[in-house]
Order: sequence, then structure tokens, then C-alpha cells
Amino acid sequence: MPQLRKDPVTRDWVIIATDRAKRPSDFGGEKATAANDDRLRCPFCPGNEEMTPPEVMAFRPQGSEPDRGGWWVRVVPNKFPALAIEGNLDKSGIGIYDTMNGVGAHEVIIETPDHQASLATMTYRQVEDILWAYRARYLDLKKDPRFKYILIFRNHGRVAGASLAHPHSQLIATPMVPGEVADEIEGSHLYEQYRDRCVYCDILRQELSQGERIVAENAHFLAFEPFASRFPFETWLVPKIHASAFTAISNPEQASFAEMLRDTLRRIQLCLNDPPYNYTLHTSPCDEDDRGRFHWHLEIFPRLTIAAGFEMGTGIYINVTPPEQAAAFLREVSLDVESPVGVTLAGHP
Amino acid sequence: MPQLRKDPVTRDWVIIATDRAKRPSDFGGEKATAANDDRLRCPFCPGNEEMTPPEVMAFRPQGSEPDRGGWWVRVVPNKFPALAIEGNLDKSGIGIYDTMNGVGAHEVIIETPDHQASLATMTYRQVEDILWAYRARYLDLKKDPRFKYILIFRNHGRVAGASLAHPHSQLIATPMVPGEVADEIEGSHLYEQYRDRCVYCDILRQELSQGERIVAENAHFLAFEPFASRFPFETWLVPKIHASAFTAISNPEQASFAEMLRDTLRRIQLCLNDPPYNYTLHTSPCDEDDRGRFHWHLEIFPRLTIAAGFEMGTGIYINVTPPEQAAAFLREVSLDVESPVGVTLAGHP
Repeated sequence: MPQLRKDPVTRDWVIIATDRAKRPSDFGGEKATAANDDRLRCPFCPGNEEMTPPEVMAFRPQGSEPDRGGWWVRVVPNKFPALAIEGNLDKSGIGIYDTMNGVGAHEVIIETPDHQASLATMTYRQVEDILWAYRARYLDLKKDPRFKYILIFRNHGRVAGASLAHPHSQLIATPMVPGEVADEIEGSHLYEQYRDRCVYCDILRQELSQGERIVAENAHFLAFEPFASRFPFETWLVPKIHASAFTAISNPEQASFAEMLRDTLRRIQLCLNDPPYNYTLHTSPCDEDDRGRFHWHLEIFPRLTIAAGFEMGTGIYINVTPPEQAAAFLREVSLDVESPVGVTLAGHP
Repeated sequence: MPQLRKDPVTRDWVIIATDRAKRPSDFGGEKATAANDDRLRCPFCPGNEEMTPPEVMAFRPQGSEPDRGGWWVRVVPNKFPALAIEGNLDKSGIGIYDTMNGVGAHEVIIETPDHQASLATMTYRQVEDILWAYRARYLDLKKDPRFKYILIFRNHGRVAGASLAHPHSQLIATPMVPGEVADEIEGSHLYEQYRDRCVYCDILRQELSQGERIVAENAHFLAFEPFASRFPFETWLVPKIHASAFTAISNPEQASFAEMLRDTLRRIQLCLNDPPYNYTLHTSPCDEDDRGRFHWHLEIFPRLTIAAGFEMGTGIYINVTPPEQAAAFLREVSLDVESPVGVTLAGHP
């Protein structure tokens, strides 16, 4: 009998198929590819810096010139932004409809000069630098009073919406708190009003005591498959100590986060043959950083199935791999790799 | 400058890209194909009735035997149901988590005996019969007190989640009102409390007076691109006279609905080279049919773009074709076809 499970934060139900649960090999295992993998004319490769708008920040040797080579993380405005950085909102009504100018920020975090690198096999140090770049952009953009929320996200593979192959993340700052974010925050607040505790802290406690959905744990982070996973192999990374905003992360926590992120992506890559995926960094809205009511975390969604009419019409996802089984598969992945630099995948020389 | 638009019902924002708006030919135009198009072993073809569970209803000549040929619409339980028809909910808690048995109904409406037919080129009469089958299943299933909502939906093409090529719709009855449905109903109620009018009736009035997003109009229905379209060429069919539940439809309204549905799908097929799409029938929850507070309608979503990390993290969709332009393209499609039976598409003999 399938099981219906309710997400304790969003209060959304999911259907967990238990009868014919799918194993990693049942998903076809097509490796993620990007729509465009042209190495010669890649706008994110060193030497092609003039193909992007001027950089807003970069980690590069002191004294080196911007928009030249030598960098190891580089952040640029998106050349084709979803929202425009200049202008005012000019909120207005057209009869019963409400509209405003599409004002916001849309940036690309180029994660490495190496076109063929993967976040799943980089050094911890390189991943940590990418996470510091995330934080630096958050802190800079939240000074702009027009922006109410900043989302960092990553699309890996064409099926997950990636148009370019060169490893990169994106950031979009919006002039309102988006609906999905507002739902999550409202859910956390409702829970706190009812129980006087943080819902994510309670989730962590229960996951640690039950154990069956845990993928990995380190000094500051727990990686687990959520009880009401919407997608097969959906994985969350949650800081073990309550913190509402990612921007408040400490040095040791960031090192821990980088290790956990890299290792989890590596587990997913090895277990599911480098599947397309998205991840999204969930943190407090810009003006709520210090109220301590949210609990920031990162959510990873491998794109193994298709959301069809039922999901679109109801918001109820049908998950064909119970999270307990997904966690067991991901836990079993061997990460016995001395140095993650230059590693080749088994069977992919 | 991109524009942010708010859906007056769900209150969700969308980003409408205005600068480089995509035309129909910009979407690649891959024709919809199903994962499995095996005509010989198609479980929905006449002669193969024993490959499905026994039919729950069919339109067939009087006196003919069930689960034999001769039918023109046939409804069967899904062989691999997302929810199980037998059993009780047995709601329970596991620590902070809530769960219940996956009880519900999952049926397939086989729309025609003709494996190669398309809803976009059938006769109006055949489409009307499919819609009567929808209604009959609604009326039957809503007698079951375990079911709170019934969603009828259609997946066309593999990219839209269709696994079999033979034309069919699906129905899932759920033991709760799904989140997306609850949001829509809550939005309608909030609007009504504020203005003492139905939000969908107000939308119809404004669309009729503005005209720029209308695709087509007939005696009882308006087809238009919603102001805050989430997807390129998203199209809604809304009854012009207020009615909360699809089940209350009259004979002349059903004929009108069939014509509008067939013609709209034909416009989409011709304009976008038979794209994959989903449609969902939005109606009142089972126990609210007669309260008159909702306004039933049908929403069609061509699957031309990919929802990536930004959409998943925020719920804000980026729509690359303004609805005003999409409406103009769909209006321009010529439907000058005397008899829609056996029509071949231009360029597809």
C-alpha cells in the first residue's frame, strides 16, 4: 500500500510508492549533459573573460587585474538576466491585476576555471571558496533595500535547466519574498507558535534518533533524505546548531559545509551515474536575518522523474523511491578516495 | 525590462520576459512522443482489453459485453495505481511526522479505440463523450466518503509524463484537498470576502474588455492566456457563466466545452508542432460542490521550457513568451477544416 506523508514544514503531502520502489539502476542512468558544451567559446573559461559582463567579485591573486585570467572563483552578472538590476519597482494595477517592474539581481558564480571539473570531485578547499563567494554576494546584495530575498541555486545538466556545461551556480535577488519561501517560513512559525521549538531542530533530533534516513553526519552538518521527500534521492544538508541565516556561518562551519556538500554530491554522482540535479539554498529573507526564526539549509533534488499533470494540478509529488531506501543506497557509496583531485569515476576513465 | 505579474487567485508572482520574447519556432518544436508506442501490445487498443483491470465504465453498444471490443470510450483502474482503492486511511503519527495509508482511486480514461488518434483532431462528438465520461466518474467517485478531491488530468508526450502513446486521460481521487487546490480555493475566498465577487468572473470581465489575451470565445466558454501565465502558451478554458463544479455542466455547455477544448488543442498542435502538454481540470472539492464559491475551469500547459532551481526554490516561474503575444499566435492559427475526422497536419502526411 502506498503511503501518504506530510512535510512538517510546508504541510504538503507526498505519495511514497512502496510496492515497486525504484532502485538507482531503474532510472535509466543517463549522465547529465548541458545544452551547450562548446569548450572553445565557453564564456566561463579563462581567457574568455570579455565574453561576460565585468566581474562583480573574484578570488584571484592579490594585485591581479579584474576580468583577466588567474582567478579561481569568479562572479559576473548574468548576460541574459531574468530580472534587471537598474530601475524602480513602480508597482501598479491594471484593473484587477497587479504588476511591477522586474527589478532584481541575477548573477553567475563561476565555480572554477576548469571547464571539465565537477563540484562532486573538487577539493574541499575549492568548494569552501565557492561557498564563501556565495556568502560575500549575499552580504553585498542584501544592502540593497529593493531586494527582499536572495536565492542561490545550481542547475546541473540540461534536464535540470543548465544551458552551459562549465561548472557554475546562480543567484537571483527578488523584490518580494517568493511564495515557496513564504510557505516554508510560515510553516516554521506556525510550528514554533504551537510547540515553542524550531521545526528543523525537531526534525534533526528525530532523524538522529531514528537513523534510517541519514546519509552522512559530520561536525556541524547532517545530510539526510527528508521523511516526506518529493523526489527520489532528495537530500537535505542541515546545520546541526540552529541558525536562521546562512550568512552567519563561522569558519569551521563553512569547512564542514563544504565537506558535506562535496561528499553528498559525490555520493549522488556515483550512486546514480552523474544525474542531472538542482540544489537550492534556503535561508532567511533579507530583513529577517537576525530574528532567528528560520533554520537555513540546502536541498538537493536529482531530476530522475517527470512532474506531470497530477503534480502540477495538486502539488502532491509521487516519489517512487522511499527515502529510507534512498538513504541506504547513498550511505553505501564508498568515498574511499585519498585525494579528490583528478579522480576518475569507476568505468569512466 | 522584465515584468513581474501577480496571479490574482494564487497570489503567486511570475516573471514575464519582455526583451527577448520567444516565438513558437524558438522552442525547438520537437513533436510529442510517448515513452512506449508499441501498437501490437498496447493495453488500451481494442482486442487487448484483458491487458487492463476490468473496466469501471464504457460507452459501448447497448447489450455488448464489458471488457470486449466495440467501445468508443473506456475507463479502467490504473494497473499501477499511485493510490490504492482498498483500505482505510489509518492516520497516524511517527514522532513529529504525520502519515496515512495511500488510499484513493487512480483510473485511466481511454479516449478512443484509435491508437493514432489525437484529441486535437477528433470529432467534437467524440471529445464530448470523453467529457461525459469524466463527469460520470466524478459523480460515481464522490459518493465515496474517503475521497476529498478528484483531479482529472492529461499528459501528452513523454516530456509531459506520458508513458503510453494511446490517447488517454487520468483521474486520481485523493483523501485530502491537495495543497495547490487549497491555495486556489483560499485565494478565491479571500477575493470574495474583499470584493463580494468571484475572482474568475472578474478575470473573465477584464479579459473580455481588454481582448489582448483572448484566444477564442464561443457560446459558453472563453479561452485565454492568463495575465500571470507561468508557462509560454499556458491557456485556460473558463465557463462564462459562474459555476463552482464541473459536474453541474448542462448539455449545451458540454457541447460548447468539447468544441472549445478540441479547437484549443488543435491551435496549440498547429502553432507549436504538436508539443508535449499537460492539462488539469480545476473544480470544487467533493464536499463543496454546491456552495458556489469556486469557479471551475481547465488549464493547459505546453511543456516548452524546464523548471530549474530558481522555480523549484521560489515557486516563481520565468515565462519567456508574454501571454499577449502567445494569444496572438494562437488566434492566428487557421482552423478552416470542414470535417476534423482523419485530417492530416500540414507537412505531416
